[in-house]
Amino acid sequence: MSSNVQIKLAARPEGLPKKTDWNIVETDIPLPGDGEILVQIIYISLDPAMRGWMSAARSYVPPVRIGQVMRAGTLGKVIESKNPKFKTGDFVTGMQGVQLYGISKGDDLVVVDPKIAPLQKYLSVLGMTGMTAYFAFLEVGKPKPGDNVVVSGAAGAVGQIVGQIARIKECHPIGIAGGESKCKEIVENFGYEHAIDYKKENVGLSLMKYLGKGKGVDVYFDNVGGDILDSVLGCISRGARIVICGAISQYNNTGETTGPKNYMSLLVNRARMEGFVVFDYYDSYPQAISEMIQWMQEGKLKSKEDIVFGIETFPETLLQLYSGGNTGKLLIQTTKDI
Amino acid sequence: MSSNVQIKLAARPEGLPKKTDWNIVETDIPLPGDGEILVQIIYISLDPAMRGWMSAARSYVPPVRIGQVMRAGTLGKVIESKNPKFKTGDFVTGMQGVQLYGISKGDDLVVVDPKIAPLQKYLSVLGMTGMTAYFAFLEVGKPKPGDNVVVSGAAGAVGQIVGQIARIKECHPIGIAGGESKCKEIVENFGYEHAIDYKKENVGLSLMKYLGKGKGVDVYFDNVGGDILDSVLGCISRGARIVICGAISQYNNTGETTGPKNYMSLLVNRARMEGFVVFDYYDSYPQAISEMIQWMQEGKLKSKEDIVFGIETFPETLLQLYSGGNTGKLLIQTTKDI
Repeated sequence: MSSNVQIKLAARPEGLPKKTDWNIVETDIPLPGDGEILVQIIYISLDPAMRGWMSAARSYVPPVRIGQVMRAGTLGKVIESKNPKFKTGDFVTGMQGVQLYGISKGDDLVVVDPKIAPLQKYLSVLGMTGMTAYFAFLEVGKPKPGDNVVVSGAAGAVGQIVGQIARIKECHPIGIAGGESKCKEIVENFGYEHAIDYKKENVGLSLMKYLGKGKGVDVYFDNVGGDILDSVLGCISRGARIVICGAISQYNNTGETTGPKNYMSLLVNRARMEGFVVFDYYDSYPQAISEMIQWMQEGKLKSKEDIVFGIETFPETLLQLYSGGNTGKLLIQTTKDI
Repeated sequence: MSSNVQIKLAARPEGLPKKTDWNIVETDIPLPGDGEILVQIIYISLDPAMRGWMSAARSYVPPVRIGQVMRAGTLGKVIESKNPKFKTGDFVTGMQGVQLYGISKGDDLVVVDPKIAPLQKYLSVLGMTGMTAYFAFLEVGKPKPGDNVVVSGAAGAVGQIVGQIARIKECHPIGIAGGESKCKEIVENFGYEHAIDYKKENVGLSLMKYLGKGKGVDVYFDNVGGDILDSVLGCISRGARIVICGAISQYNNTGETTGPKNYMSLLVNRARMEGFVVFDYYDSYPQAISEMIQWMQEGKLKSKEDIVFGIETFPETLLQLYSGGNTGKLLIQTTKDI
């Protein structure tokens, strides 16, 4: 323990974030004041939404300011506490950002128990990622048993969990992912009945094959937007629910966003397209987490983390999310000494 | 009473329907068989949706076949009845198509009372047009008192009624229409607090002016699609409801439909975009009609019909809907002898 390393936003990116959009800064480790705690950050969550947080555009959270530590979900260990609610050695999750050490008054941190689940699970299936899958699918998607559920980005962190919850809820999940190995993995490990490789297949034609004659997509969980959204819109059933969870295909566009040309399918099918932001469900996280833990203990729900070592890798590791370079939940681990 | 005239679909149009897409046919007046009635059609309803019915694309109703009498809502008078439920002289509404005389078994016809409202009202405010405004706004838009309601195509048949219902429900309706006289008319006569002339104004900027600081659009009733949909998406409030009732700007596109580039505003604002087809509410029409009649009697709801004489004008009269050439409900009257 010698100094803090922080990754700050240096410039608003155009297209994919470049190295020069970041400043890596070494500073002293901060000292906790009265009522504060000092946390050593062990895992940092990398999320597609980060690209949006880097933009100046109005969104569901304020943009990260130039010069500010990059916003990120974190898991860390309390190493000094001047707050009676926390003791040294506690593990806590929060949004402490891309840095090695963070100070907090504690209001925004939750203590987690490493005996219930390995620490990294608190940033994946039991963290924002799992909460996103759970609430977006169940509250916005409103699945019924027997529903055909289609998920894009199905091999991604959220997609892997949606497939399994869909199976738990007796739906028929079909996953869309890029590449043979991802497609194989989601069928073998993450609950999907079928997988469509969008890099090789015509998504609409493959969907029709798997849906069966006269059947449509009842719930579409969209993480990607773009052409895939249009293909699925062409196959929805009457009263379908389309959950807009993300649009990763569009985040690094330097031109205009591609809107869904097939949106009039919403009219023809009396269907609904609805946006989702996980933070709205914050008060219900504990109930969801306890249900997720139960599913994990029953062997019905697993998660995969893709862990990269070293905070200094952040600028390039983040790009994996937009190149389709990883499967499962992408995390940075900052220290081998947990 | 000499012969029947029918307007049949001759070809599927590309872009705007041309004269050669129609066949005007003179035939004998049909004779009613057992259980059937013969109806002389007096008014024919012209609706933007007709363009969709002429296309081969899968939709909420089967396409009109080549050689088939064009589908249309109608009001007519029973001139011969072999069905005990109807008597000569009854006035009936239904979907008897663009022709002077129609045969029906009666299941698809409803008897209306000319003492309650003038006959043409049964194809406008008390017909499919009024039912569309009523159910799309109330059931899909789910307005609350105080909501900012924005309507495109506000001087059109549906839009004029939505403005008045929004006012009845204590909302703040803002109408978008093309041209000064339409804008003046909807504010003076149809309940709108403000009107935006999309031909002269920047819709987004004008909206922000009328919404007031920090306020957004709570319900957007979209009849037009295209750029206006995008402008309104840029101004929605959290939890907004966007009713997709039509997309008249796109119906005669020969190229691809323009999708809403701003659809990610649904995510940022946890908003919903939902399609609507009036026929789904068929069983509830009587309740809606009786409420609409009451509002009419209280002076809270009026409607304007734009009546063109002569069935042979159908091919060119229809085009008024797509050129913005009319305000209010466009009808063809077939006879002066009612």
